Amino acid sequence: MVIDSENLESLLDTGYIERVQIQRINPEGRQDMDDIVVREQPLTIVLNDQELVTLLSSPADMKYLAVGFLSSEGMLNDRSDIKRIAHDERRGIVWVETTNKTPLEPEVLHRRLITSGCGRGASFYSATDVQADMRVESSTTMAASKITDLVMEFQHRSEVYRATGGVHSAALSDGQRIVAFHEDIGRHNAVDKVFGDCILNDISTADGIIITSGRISSEILLKIAHHKIPVLISKSAPTNLGLNLANNLGITLIGFVRGKRMNVYTNAWRVTG
Amino acid sequence: MVIDSENLESLLDTGYIERVQIQRINPEGRQDMDDIVVREQPLTIVLNDQELVTLLSSPADMKYLAVGFLSSEGMLNDRSDIKRIAHDERRGIVWVETTNKTPLEPEVLHRRLITSGCGRGASFYSATDVQADMRVESSTTMAASKITDLVMEFQHRSEVYRATGGVHSAALSDGQRIVAFHEDIGRHNAVDKVFGDCILNDISTADGIIITSGRISSEILLKIAHHKIPVLISKSAPTNLGLNLANNLGITLIGFVRGKRMNVYTNAWRVTG
Repeated sequence: MVIDSENLESLLDTGYIERVQIQRINPEGRQDMDDIVVREQPLTIVLNDQELVTLLSSPADMKYLAVGFLSSEGMLNDRSDIKRIAHDERRGIVWVETTNKTPLEPEVLHRRLITSGCGRGASFYSATDVQADMRVESSTTMAASKITDLVMEFQHRSEVYRATGGVHSAALSDGQRIVAFHEDIGRHNAVDKVFGDCILNDISTADGIIITSGRISSEILLKIAHHKIPVLISKSAPTNLGLNLANNLGITLIGFVRGKRMNVYTNAWRVTG
Repeated sequence: MVIDSENLESLLDTGYIERVQIQRINPEGRQDMDDIVVREQPLTIVLNDQELVTLLSSPADMKYLAVGFLSSEGMLNDRSDIKRIAHDERRGIVWVETTNKTPLEPEVLHRRLITSGCGRGASFYSATDVQADMRVESSTTMAASKITDLVMEFQHRSEVYRATGGVHSAALSDGQRIVAFHEDIGRHNAVDKVFGDCILNDISTADGIIITSGRISSEILLKIAHHKIPVLISKSAPTNLGLNLANNLGITLIGFVRGKRMNVYTNAWRVTG
């Protein structure tokens, strides 16, 4: 990968990437040389003294990741729910203490655990449950031209991605501009970092729009539904389960935004112009 | 995405993709049209009557996925460990009963659970533990030209990927040709399906080579180390943690294979010619 040396130094400072020694082989022979790789670090989230989950993530904005993950899982709602938060960078642990310390039922904890990360419990997928509890009722609309503008701004900001090709980006927009932006090796983590940023810095997510670089699977839909986000925009494609959930949850799903073209998969009434 | 109609019909038959109705917006206006999306389905693995994990995966070869996941997690080693295996397609459950039914300790179960999926426990990352338990000692070597040939064959076989851009591929090679090949929306699942296929169909993985379309993170390294795989080839890049693990585990890590070029990140002595 080609990065000019000035950009490389500033990227190394962010903690997202690391310099390594590789051997490059091509038809002319082999050569020892410097290269860069993206960094990956385990983060363990401890909620009220209970070890909850370990996520593999880019080592930046770990508090945002922890708070965003907890809020996307419905374990806290806003900043007033957080009594104390501490981060041990060396050991890769974030402790969160909430004001309401209802201990998690072993059954809930079990379900939570098996359903975090890449997998999620089948029980979450019942369309009936989803409609009753989580439907997003927002009447917000946005112009197609605004969507293409926002995605252009989004791409412009994805500097680690452009440099390494190795991370996903996610952003919150208020419909006019991007108000929170994060990158992570995990596409779920990038979205959770955005929500954590919003909670810890009092950025409103009401009628907000989430933009993501990654594929839209069911888990992303459940995360944004917890935050009552009415519009989800991706540069990539949804899965059928993501699409069905968006449909049932009342969320407008827009994919494959490329230049002035896009596919609207569900609830197209929110896209005007 | 553009697929000719003959390929489309045979792809729809595989269960990997589904036809959907979308609204396409471009500068000329909007148009209702048919499109396809990749399918995603939860699979719950029940080991000896204990619910272990739920994975989101492409709905094909679910028994391979379950058996491969269990073997990569060290919960079974070969076909003789499996007493019974059953699959309920409608409910998305695979039950596996092993001959040795040592119940999992709650502590182990807890750790396993929180470390599955996208996240994995920090304890697994101790380089000392890893070296002692899991180091791959194989003295196998392979020619650089063979690597480029295998990756070309690998790409040629990735038909769902080529059609949809939405799934990852993984394969096992014996050093001469590809002997097992699978695709899945999850890059970990594709690798586990390969191992499940090998176990259930008595395909030897000794001195085998794993090829993957996806990024190489630490989890993939731990999976292949459990199977004593000495060479890992990717079309993409490793993370720093993946690279460090490969180094400590004695695994040869080759990335960015493009035409006759490649980067060798660790244990380059296994690549000859």
